[in-house]
Parts: sequence; structure tokens; C-alpha cells
Amino acid sequence: MSGIAFPAPDADILARRDAIVAGLAELLPPEALIVSEDERRAFETDALTAYRRMPLAVALPSTTEEVAAVMRFCNAQGVKVVPRGAGTSLSGGAIPQEDAVVLGVAKMNRVLDVDFADRTMRVQAGITNLAISQAVAYEGFFYAPDPSSQLACTIAGNIGMNSGGAHCLKYGVTTNNILGVRMVLLDGSVVDIGSDALDAPGYDLLGLVIGSEGQLGVVTEATVRILRAAEGARPVLFGFETSEQAGAAVAAIVAAGIVPVAMEFMDKPAIEICEAFAHAGYPLDVGALLIIEVEGSDAEMDVALARIVEIARAHEVKTIRESKSAMETAAIWKGRKSAFGATGRVADYICMDGTIPTGQLPLVLRRMDEIVKSYGLRVANVFHAGDGNLHPLIMYNVNDPEEARKAEEAGNDILKLCVEVGGCLTGEHGVGIEKRDLMRHQFTQDDLEQQMRVRAVFDRNWLLNPAKVFPLDGRLAA
Amino acid sequence: MSGIAFPAPDADILARRDAIVAGLAELLPPEALIVSEDERRAFETDALTAYRRMPLAVALPSTTEEVAAVMRFCNAQGVKVVPRGAGTSLSGGAIPQEDAVVLGVAKMNRVLDVDFADRTMRVQAGITNLAISQAVAYEGFFYAPDPSSQLACTIAGNIGMNSGGAHCLKYGVTTNNILGVRMVLLDGSVVDIGSDALDAPGYDLLGLVIGSEGQLGVVTEATVRILRAAEGARPVLFGFETSEQAGAAVAAIVAAGIVPVAMEFMDKPAIEICEAFAHAGYPLDVGALLIIEVEGSDAEMDVALARIVEIARAHEVKTIRESKSAMETAAIWKGRKSAFGATGRVADYICMDGTIPTGQLPLVLRRMDEIVKSYGLRVANVFHAGDGNLHPLIMYNVNDPEEARKAEEAGNDILKLCVEVGGCLTGEHGVGIEKRDLMRHQFTQDDLEQQMRVRAVFDRNWLLNPAKVFPLDGRLAA
Repeated sequence: MSGIAFPAPDADILARRDAIVAGLAELLPPEALIVSEDERRAFETDALTAYRRMPLAVALPSTTEEVAAVMRFCNAQGVKVVPRGAGTSLSGGAIPQEDAVVLGVAKMNRVLDVDFADRTMRVQAGITNLAISQAVAYEGFFYAPDPSSQLACTIAGNIGMNSGGAHCLKYGVTTNNILGVRMVLLDGSVVDIGSDALDAPGYDLLGLVIGSEGQLGVVTEATVRILRAAEGARPVLFGFETSEQAGAAVAAIVAAGIVPVAMEFMDKPAIEICEAFAHAGYPLDVGALLIIEVEGSDAEMDVALARIVEIARAHEVKTIRESKSAMETAAIWKGRKSAFGATGRVADYICMDGTIPTGQLPLVLRRMDEIVKSYGLRVANVFHAGDGNLHPLIMYNVNDPEEARKAEEAGNDILKLCVEVGGCLTGEHGVGIEKRDLMRHQFTQDDLEQQMRVRAVFDRNWLLNPAKVFPLDGRLAA
Repeated sequence: MSGIAFPAPDADILARRDAIVAGLAELLPPEALIVSEDERRAFETDALTAYRRMPLAVALPSTTEEVAAVMRFCNAQGVKVVPRGAGTSLSGGAIPQEDAVVLGVAKMNRVLDVDFADRTMRVQAGITNLAISQAVAYEGFFYAPDPSSQLACTIAGNIGMNSGGAHCLKYGVTTNNILGVRMVLLDGSVVDIGSDALDAPGYDLLGLVIGSEGQLGVVTEATVRILRAAEGARPVLFGFETSEQAGAAVAAIVAAGIVPVAMEFMDKPAIEICEAFAHAGYPLDVGALLIIEVEGSDAEMDVALARIVEIARAHEVKTIRESKSAMETAAIWKGRKSAFGATGRVADYICMDGTIPTGQLPLVLRRMDEIVKSYGLRVANVFHAGDGNLHPLIMYNVNDPEEARKAEEAGNDILKLCVEVGGCLTGEHGVGIEKRDLMRHQFTQDDLEQQMRVRAVFDRNWLLNPAKVFPLDGRLAA
């Protein structure tokens, strides 16, 4: 794929590379600065591997003070900075550019404080999503948003992209689970945004920062909400003849006011791919599968499930299988969470990430299928149906440029469809470079300029992650 | 009270009053423009009645287009605009100034659309909070945030102040229940922010708008989330010997991960005042009362209540009384929701609105009592304990200037205490003029300037609700 343009690197910066590296070397211990081409190569892309750019240098600081020193230096020198967590971005949010320094926070991965009385926890921003939950599991607590990449992805990246996950239907996404951040601004100043309480004074700058894709500052610490895990949880598999039936069942469950912890959708190709990979026990004789998880006491789960089963029956559900053991539950979720990896074994794919109002699910499922077929391609659908967050995986042959172009076009058509029915271009993967130019389908130039003016309050000169989010043409001048 | 300064009115604007009124008269039907002194007097204050200013004129448009016309005109003429919902602000957020036009949205009070499948509803911004719930009650749905003033207050005001309410512990406050707004900017342009889906593209400008106290634009329509009402709900009264015990019980319930729908606290003075007014059946032989409401099926409520009772017993609860009927439930909530009005019958008071981390509740309850006593005043405490949102009502004699000054100082000391323990100056009433000068205890000048720069993206010349939120000195120039 090559449909997305990178800006030409700044020749002046490239010419000053040695001096810039020397300046950074004065601010960081030797092991925190990556200069050699071999080592830089590990940072030339992220999970959107179709695009690669070699960064000028990579800084891996261990403290907020070191981050501040790097930011102050880069700002003074006019050097671009690309913040990076674990590099698992599916939209290319962490892909560098030749005239930029990558600033990675992965070394800052410690738990700083746990407060069970207030149900909050203070962590460094490079900690992985799963490590947060693991650190408080001994007391029966957990951190709710659970992206499929939770073993690797950092809370810094989650904050940058406002990440979700299968269990966000009930507990909300990142923005609903972060109470405060410590952030380094471009000029090196360190600010605390949000508070330890449920409400924070002043404008909702925390909301502004969450999902801002590393363009307002670099987050080095975060206060997260932790929740008490429910008494028990039980996923149930509901197999339907058609995707439309499954989609209509989801819409009916939502409209009935039932909020399961998770409501995940897989179509036939996704079921087959995941079952072959993970042996999750998914039914193979159905056209679409819903994994619906309820939680609470046994009595609570029984009540909720009875209502869900009733709705599923009204939509002609074909098979219902309840998990009977912790092992079965683990297998069911392993299948779902390995969907991207499993698809990657059978084909190259691009993963879309649109959102739609849940009521539009049956319509959008039908139209998506038509779109992908019209390009002669195949699609596997796995997604968070409960909150209307779609993840069609469009499969193509990476070595066939024509097919790659078609896959990208089909993906664009799907995202435009999401916008048309009242949804948006991205649910949890972010805009990055991948959807940068599609932003014009969501926003007018006026809309974009207003957003850019807000952005300019933090970074007037487009130094922070500059190639991303906003189309390259029509940008506000400094 | 008179501790808070208003800026001197702009003499040039006052001199041009006739021309400004004539200009507005060309944009609005006669009944939508209030000019005479008698009629303007109804708009000279809000629920912070200690402060009053007569506005230049009052515009009460019926459509977004009329709002846009007024904004465009005022912007062109350099006339200040004070947006107003129902005028129930406790922090003076709707108090006008002599050189400003009040722009009230109360006439725009229609339901535009209800979508049960997506659980959303589109309303005009002048609709009252309660009318939203009433409009969908026939299908068993409701709008969650429930300020005590819900019979009168508008969703426009709720959005301006990010209002909460007794039942927000479980369902979140305004910002968690609004999906989108239509907003008129100062230049008259009309923008849609947010979306009909659970996630919206671009920066979280919706979060920025909610709680911005009418300083970024005038909201004329909103898409709100509606929720299916639970099968049943049951409030239970827990009486404790001391406020500290009740506070510790709240902290323990939160720490145990139990989330009741509401967890309201009343101290002895509040119990007595409310019981005398509403005959709610509150126990009079206790030092502090918790109203804890659980909801769900009978089985679910039994399970949750058993755990809460166990914790309350561990904190030496003295009396437990469960509501046994819908009438009892209504009486219990009527008592709580009329607390402000009931207090007003026995004394003048100022109502504070600080938030604290729940774990600090026992400490803060003790310190608040000491503070108020040190001024020789009395305080009644009613508040949303579950989410740490305090509402001490400091009682004083409005005709005694010395006592009024003391009440204001005691209130300031309490809010500073909230900030000290990690909380903030306002939970749901907003900064308004009341807490404008206290913002310096929460924020540094640097913090405030960054917020003002964000604000300036929408209103560079301080025309929108200008006397509020930010201290008058140290403001950014246009």
C-alpha cells in the first residue's frame, strides 16, 4: 500500500543530524539514545506495517525530567517529535518520519501508587495495559478497558488513541477510566491535568488530551480508575443463520436496556479463521456468532441471560452455548482476542475501525458485504457490536499492488458508509496516518480549522506527531 | 454579600443602548425581546440572589437561526452576551451585567426526535431536565442526571455546568450522558459537535463544551442518552451516631466496589430541617443519615443490600429502614431533594459545592465542622457522598453584613480544604462568579492562561459570559 503521502523531510534538519544527536546525548544516558541504523530500524513502523520511515534518532527516557529535557531541546531546535508507546498502533499513529525524533515512554513502566479506598492507581505511562490489572488482581480489582493488544500496548498509547476493548460496553473506554495525567508540553513544562477525584476543575482538558494522538504533549504518568471485579462472569455463544439476524438481535438487546459486559460479533469467515487458530469451540455451522458476556452473582447472571436468550430466540438464534468452566471461558476469549493475529496467518489484511449507531447494524453489515464483494475481495468481521464499533478485516495479497489499492479503497468506502449513517471514522484505533485524508469526509474545512486552532494552543509549529490526524493540505500556518 | 467585584460597565455600550435594542428588534419578533425595566428585572439574578445586575436587554429566541442572528449582531457590535437557561444557577453563572444582552433559550423546549433502538433522544436546549425523562417514561426509559432543580433547570444549563444529581453515582453526570450538541458560535455560525454514536471523531470538543459555563457558544439542541429504567429501586435509610462513622461507611462501600444508584449523606441539622419540611420519615435520633438506593430485580437488590448492611454494621450503624412502598420511596427522595428549599425556610444560606476523593470523607467532615464553628456559624450538610461531592449549606443572617462576610469566608476555607485534599472547587454548580476568584487556589497563572488560550479559540474578545470563571485580573488580552 502506498496511498498515503508523507511530507518531504526538512533538509535543514537532516543536515543538522549530527549536532541534534550530540545535543540529545547530553540530555540522556547512553542506553536511552538510539542512533545506529540497525537499532533505529526497530522503530521505523508500528502495527500498520505497510508504511515505514526511518527516524532521525530514538530517545527512550526513564523519567519525566528526561522527557522534559528532550522536548525542550527539540522545541528549541525546531525538531519534530513522534511520541511512542509500544508501537502497536493500527492506524500508523507511531510511524516516524525521517526528520523526527521518536520519543518512546516504554521504559517508564512502574506502578507508583495504589489507593483501594478511592479505587485509583497511579502509574507511569509506559506500563502495559495488562500489567495495570495484574498489579491489583490480588485484591480482586482490575482496569477496565481491554484492547486485544493489552499484553503489549501501553497506557500512554491507550490515552493517545482513547482505546476501547471487548469489555468497554459496560465500563466505558479509556476516557471514562482515566482521572488524571502528568504531561510534558513541547516547551518542556510539566503539567498535571485532571485530579484524583471523580470530577476535575476547569475545562475538560483531560478529555481533550485523551484521543489527541500525541499532538498536544507527551503523557508520562496517569491516574487510572480501578474497579472491583464482579463475583463471576459467563460468556455465552449465540449462533445465527445470517449476519443481519445477529445484528438485529444486538440492536434489540441494546434497545431493551440490557447492558452485558461484552457483546462481540464474528461473521462466518472470522469464526472459521479464529476457530482454526484458537480451538475456542465456536460453532462452525452458523453464519454469524455473538459472544455475549454477563457478570455478577449466579442469580444476577441467570436473570440477565434469560432476557438475552428470549431476545435471541425472537431473532431465530440457531445455537446457544454457555461457558461451563473457567477453561471454556478462557478459550472463548482467546479465540476472539486473537482474531487479528489469526487472520494475519491466512492473508494480509487491513483492519478498519468505524463506529455506527447500533440501530444501523443490520443495514451496515449488508452494505459492507456488498462493498467488499464489488472489489472482488474477502472480508472477515469481528467487532464490538454492543457499542457499534466495527472492525472489518479486509483481506488482500500484499504482493499485488492492484489488490492492495482495492483493499484500501474498499476500506475507505466502508468508513464513508459509517460517516453517512451517523457514525465516525474511528472508534479506538485513531486517525493516525491511515485515516488522515479521510477526515475530509467527516469534517468540513471549518471544522478542521477550529480543531487545529485548539491544537495550536499546545503546538503552534506542528512539531508533535505532525504527519498525522489532519490532512496535509489546508493546515493552519504557525 | 458583596465580596465579588463586577467589572465596570462599558460606557460606550451603555450610550449606544437605544441603537443596540433597535438592532435586536429587527432580528426578533416583538415578544422575544425584553426591553422595559420591569420585565428585565426578572433576569437580573439567578439562584445566587445575593448578586444582581440589570441587563441591557433580554433576547428569548425560538429557533437556532434567531440565536445565530443575535450572536452575529452582538459580536459585530462588540456587545457582551450572557447565555441563560432557567436561571437556577447556584454560582451566579446566569447573572447578567449592565452592558450585556441576556440570551435565554427557555422558549426552545421541544423534543425533536426519540430513537429507542439507539437509546438516544434529540431535544431543544431549553427543555427542562425532568421533561426529558417524562417524554420517554411511557416506554420505561429516563435521562439519568437528576439535579435537585430538575423540575425547572434546562438541559442547556446542565450542559453549561456539567450538572450532576443524586443518581449520578451509577450513571455519571451530564458529560457522560450527552452525545452531541448543536451550538451557535459568537460569529453566528452553527456547528454540530459530537455524534449520534457512542464515540465521536476528532478532539473531544464535546467534553470541552460541557461545563464551559456559556463561554464558548450557545447550545440550542442536544442529543442525550436515554436509559431503560431498572425493574425496581429501593432506597434504604442508614442512621449513624456520628458523621465520621457515616463517612467511613461510604468510603468502605466504595472501596468494596459496590456501586449503588445513589448514596446521599445528611448530617443532624440537615435531617431535622428536611424532616420538618417534607415529613420524609427520617430518624431524628441519629447524628448522620445515609440514603442508599439500590436497583434491579428483587433478587439483585437483596444481594446488594445484604453487602451494604454488612458494611454499615461494621461501622456501628444505629438504625436501618428500608422503603417498603412507592409512597415511602417518593417521600424519602422528596425530603432529600427539597433540602435547599427547606434550609431556606429556616435561615439564609450559601451552598458550597466542593468535591473530594471519597477516601478523605471522614477527615473533611471533621475539618468542615471545625471551620464553620470557628466563625460562630452553623452548617447543614447534604451531599452526594458516593462520588465525593459535598454541599455544605452555611447558614447566616443576610441582614448582618458581618455575618455574611463570615459565611463567605467559611465557604472559601471549605473549598480550599477540598483543593488541599486533592479535590476541586466545584462538582456540579460551576464556578460562575461565586468561585471565580477562588480559581487561583486551584490553578496557577500558567494553568489559567492555558485554559484562556483554549477559550480564546472560541471567543477572543471576552464577549461571552465574560465576568465569570476566570479571575478578572491576569486575563489574556484579545
